[in-house]
Amino acid sequence: MSRVLYELAAADPDRRFSPFCWRIRLALEHKGLAFEGRPWRFTEQDALAFSGSDKVPVLVEDGRAIADSSLIAAHLEAAYPDRPTLFGGAAGLALTRFHAAWTDQVLHPALAPLLLLDIHRHLGEADQAYFRHSREARFGKPLEAVCADRDGQIAILRKTLAPVRAVLRAQPFLGGDAPLYADHAVMGAFLWAHGVGAPDVLEPDDPVAVWRRRMLDRLGEGSRALTLG
Amino acid sequence: MSRVLYELAAADPDRRFSPFCWRIRLALEHKGLAFEGRPWRFTEQDALAFSGSDKVPVLVEDGRAIADSSLIAAHLEAAYPDRPTLFGGAAGLALTRFHAAWTDQVLHPALAPLLLLDIHRHLGEADQAYFRHSREARFGKPLEAVCADRDGQIAILRKTLAPVRAVLRAQPFLGGDAPLYADHAVMGAFLWAHGVGAPDVLEPDDPVAVWRRRMLDRLGEGSRALTLG
Repeated sequence: MSRVLYELAAADPDRRFSPFCWRIRLALEHKGLAFEGRPWRFTEQDALAFSGSDKVPVLVEDGRAIADSSLIAAHLEAAYPDRPTLFGGAAGLALTRFHAAWTDQVLHPALAPLLLLDIHRHLGEADQAYFRHSREARFGKPLEAVCADRDGQIAILRKTLAPVRAVLRAQPFLGGDAPLYADHAVMGAFLWAHGVGAPDVLEPDDPVAVWRRRMLDRLGEGSRALTLG
Repeated sequence: MSRVLYELAAADPDRRFSPFCWRIRLALEHKGLAFEGRPWRFTEQDALAFSGSDKVPVLVEDGRAIADSSLIAAHLEAAYPDRPTLFGGAAGLALTRFHAAWTDQVLHPALAPLLLLDIHRHLGEADQAYFRHSREARFGKPLEAVCADRDGQIAILRKTLAPVRAVLRAQPFLGGDAPLYADHAVMGAFLWAHGVGAPDVLEPDDPVAVWRRRMLDRLGEGSRALTLG
């Protein structure tokens, strides 16, 4: 079977930085499914037109396209039930929506002010223009203003992670003894930061940093090539 | 089997207001387990001494005491596996730690400034002194100062609920099609507010308010008697 994952990339095609694409990359590796990760840029709308989506991730299996990370993850679980589970059953799938929603609505906004200028710096010229325009409209101010007060934002991020930290004090992964999709959802945020070369802002002995190390150690070969160096 | 749940109560013994005790009350009803809910006050340390805990909830089954809501919930799931599940399996148990941690560390602090004075108002004299002293030490200011800016706190609470709201837009309960312990953890916070007669601060068409109605409709008879009127 051919399997292609369209992933957001910077000017350097090996710099993949969408947290939502990372979730699916981790999910595919979790399931042990081979795939080609194909770089895609913000301004390459035409290249996605076939899928009916204007955003990545888009997964294409034998010509069938699925967009939206939550839908792709649910598809992978349903289509490959004999491979390692992403959710641990129907209840786990339902419960994981909260981890994903919290990551989308709380963690990403807490991280964005620490990343937006790094993202911008790594984009090609056309993508830079698109990114600045769309993000400044979303935040209602210049990127530089969103990213001001870096120390304050670091403090906010660390505080935001409190409930994740509490869980990781009690068990090695959000999913328990081994990672589940809930771990991939949160880890996607850190790989977003990693992908644009943002400095690490966690204390090294933070249980979240220790868990992140465990997650990095489990990356598949393809992802490892994208995250080292 | 005798089964007693020690629950935090106000001067009126039918006014039960600990969010952690409510979680266990809901979990016991979820499992269909009969129990006596025994009112306990902050200053009745002696009455709990037998359990080795100085806090409620404490569940006593045939003389065996278990304290701490998370431990009690895990015990109920393990001891009564043939009754309706609270977690939906091992993965669900691990994943639910995040809902509980988020409720403890994010939702409760967002709700507390809207409740502390209502709690104080309903306590007996000795408990009032204990409550004011211990909470003012914890918050580092007078209760009245913690509870100032009510409108601002309402806005914070509504924003804090964003990830719960997002999940409840996609499915009727945090646990999916039916409640799980994750629902009880979050509902405990609302029953804390309800238990001290705090005014409702959600918009009636908020998906969280709609879910809360569904949860109230499912209360067992014993809890219904404590929440009506």
